[in-house]
Order: sequence, then C-alpha cells, then structure tokens
Amino acid sequence: MAEQGAESELGVTGRTRLRRMRHKGSHRRGDLDAVLGAGFLCHLGVVVDGAPMVVPTVYGVDGDRLYVHGSVASRSLVQAPDGVVCVSVTHVDGLVLARSVFEHGVNYRSAMIYGVPRLVTDPEEKLRGLKALTEQSAPGQWEYVRQPSRKELAATALVALDLAEASVKVASGPPDDGDGPDAEMGLWAGVLPVETRFGVPEADPLLPAGIEPPAHIAGRAGELLGRSPGR
Amino acid sequence: MAEQGAESELGVTGRTRLRRMRHKGSHRRGDLDAVLGAGFLCHLGVVVDGAPMVVPTVYGVDGDRLYVHGSVASRSLVQAPDGVVCVSVTHVDGLVLARSVFEHGVNYRSAMIYGVPRLVTDPEEKLRGLKALTEQSAPGQWEYVRQPSRKELAATALVALDLAEASVKVASGPPDDGDGPDAEMGLWAGVLPVETRFGVPEADPLLPAGIEPPAHIAGRAGELLGRSPGR
Repeated sequence: MAEQGAESELGVTGRTRLRRMRHKGSHRRGDLDAVLGAGFLCHLGVVVDGAPMVVPTVYGVDGDRLYVHGSVASRSLVQAPDGVVCVSVTHVDGLVLARSVFEHGVNYRSAMIYGVPRLVTDPEEKLRGLKALTEQSAPGQWEYVRQPSRKELAATALVALDLAEASVKVASGPPDDGDGPDAEMGLWAGVLPVETRFGVPEADPLLPAGIEPPAHIAGRAGELLGRSPGR
Repeated sequence: MAEQGAESELGVTGRTRLRRMRHKGSHRRGDLDAVLGAGFLCHLGVVVDGAPMVVPTVYGVDGDRLYVHGSVASRSLVQAPDGVVCVSVTHVDGLVLARSVFEHGVNYRSAMIYGVPRLVTDPEEKLRGLKALTEQSAPGQWEYVRQPSRKELAATALVALDLAEASVKVASGPPDDGDGPDAEMGLWAGVLPVETRFGVPEADPLLPAGIEPPAHIAGRAGELLGRSPGR
C-alpha cells in the first residue's frame, strides 16, 4: 500500500502538470520559430475601410523578418501606411474528445504576429524575401527552378514584417475531465490526432515523359507537415 | 500530321480551360457549403482598438448560420456592437511547383464570410449552436457525451453570423507554365499534394482499461479531412 500510494502521488503530480500544460502561452522566440518553421501558410488580417479582412497567403522567414506574399497586404498599406496587421499561423494536432461537451477542444500550436508592414521595393531584398517564401514550403526549389526576372520581380507584391511583437499558444494533451465526476460515466475519451502530410508528387500532364521529380521533391512524399524541421 | 494537329488543338483547348480554372471565384451557396463542410477550424478576424486581430477557433454550421466559439468574438462585440467581423476557412490541397519561381503557388479551397456577429444568449439557441460546433468536427459526439449543464452554457461564449455575405476561392490544377518557354528547360513540374487525415484515436491515459472508442470515433482513423462529406 505504501508503494502504491507513492506511485499514485507521482501519477497525480504528473497529471496535474499535464493539465496545467494543456494551454500554454509563450513569448519566447524559440517557440515562435518552431511554429513558423513548421508551416508555410498564414492568415493575414488587415483593416480595410474599418472592417477586418482575413486572407490566407504564404509566408517565409528570413532572420528577424517575416515576408508575406500578396496584393492584399500591399493594398492595405496604401490605405493605411502605418496601420498594424496581424499574421496568424495555426497547426491543428488533434481533436480533444472529453466526457462532456464543455471539455471538448482542439490541440494546436499557433502563433500571432503583430506589426506595421513595410512594402519591399528594393530588388535585392525582394529576391531574398521571395527566396525565403519559396524555401519555406519547398526547400531546394529556389536553386532548381528559374529565378524571377526583373519584370517578374516588379510584378510581385511582397511585404516585410518584423518578428518583434508575437505570441505563441500551444494546447496539447488529453482531456481535463479524466479524474472528475464525468469519468464515472465510463465513456471513451482521448485525442483524435490530425496529421497533415505531403503526398506523392503529381507530374504536370504537359510534362514530357522521362522527367522525374528531383530528390528535394520526391523525397517529401509522406513527410509530416506542421512539424518543425528535425522533429 | 493532320491527326496530330487535331490532337494538339484539343490538348491546348483543354489546357487553356484548366489554366483559366486554376483560380476560380464563386459566390454560390453550394460552393460555400462545400468549403465549410470540409473543416471545423476557422480564422476569425476582428478589429480591436483599430488593429486587426486574427484568432483560430472552431465553427459550426446550422442552416443559414455560422456559429463561432470563443471569447475573442464576444469581446470584440462589446467593443463594437455593430462591428463587422471576417471569418476565413482554408483547406490546403497542394504545392504548385512550376518551372519558374514566379509561377509557384498553392492549391487551396477557401471561404471568406463577412457579417455583424450576434452574441447568442438564448439557452436554446446556444445549445443548438454548440451542437453544430461539436458535430462539425466530431459527428455523433453530441449524443455520446454529457451535454452542457445550465452553468456550463452560461460560461460558454458563442457568436452567430449570417451566411449571407461570403465568397469562395478555389485554386487547383497543375502549374501554368507547361506550354511556355520555361518548359524547354526540362525541369520537373507538377503538384506536391497536401493531405490532412485523422489518425488512430489515443485514449486518455486516465481511461480505465477495457473502454474502447465508439464507432463514430474509431471509424475515423485514416479519414481525409478537408474534404466535403461524401467526397
């Protein structure tokens, strides 16, 4: 009994810590880098005529800068040159299925970045930013394909944001009601994981026979997305 | 040669149509339902102190209404009772890997809904809304688990939005540069698919042995997410 008691206490301590950890906020740069490094799509929020507008777009990280692609961001700059924008990146890890509706939730990792965006006009920085964007989703692709011409560069809208004001939120772990009264109902509870993966590359139907995908593309089939590199 | 020419023309026609279709906008309700029906997570944009704020949260559809969970939406209501919000739902289908950086892109389906949100206070509508939220991600779960008590209902923030002002955007298909000069470079081009699936249910470590996940949960392992029901 004494040994069992000691085990129970350890168990409860671990459980308590897990429960406290289900929702974790952070302002650490390392945590921000982990969330940003695990994806390539963000939701960009801008204010247009007093109303919020949320558009999905691709991003890239280069040092302390976030580069965001698209004309929406640049249009919002014209409207409010010193207006703040908000960029959200979210990775869904699973559905938290509890014993009661009230305790249901989603396991996720998300980052929110605020900043006054700057329209990138310098061709050199634009190239660097576009490289960051390209390599964010498809590492190796920048060197493999034809890089932008001067005309293409001019036709591309790119916006830079400092990675200075940001927060990270992570929710993980099992539901919280495993030791409450609802546990007596004998219902199954746990997490239904959500996994995002790259599939098998699909060749452009116009591609001549005999051209195989290079290793940096072919090698990604089955790769988990939404995980930080190296995880 | 005559036959080959005829084939080429057919090919080009089909290609041209595909190219035009790569980015498709729609205001049809059916297209909106398809995008909303394929997911459960949205990015909600609100204006707080003049700045946009984009937060990930869960949603549910009930008839002509979208219900959105969370305190952020309700807080924004207090600040601007007649303020518009924007809800974005995005499903990523693949990376479009072209012969040039300029033609790279993402295949996706996305919906954007604007509206003046209404804080749900009527307990009956709140129950209906929470049911829609719960069933959106986990059909069958509402009847399986304990439904909200009066106290829990009161502690839940729920916001309703009319599905009246919305647009849908879909990008699909191969890259656009398959018949341009860049095709001469002999590079591989195509689409790297992105697939999101449910994994194998992970039981709460506190769950007593012998309680198996019910069919409506166990049966989802391997199910593709981001696809409309029935697709």
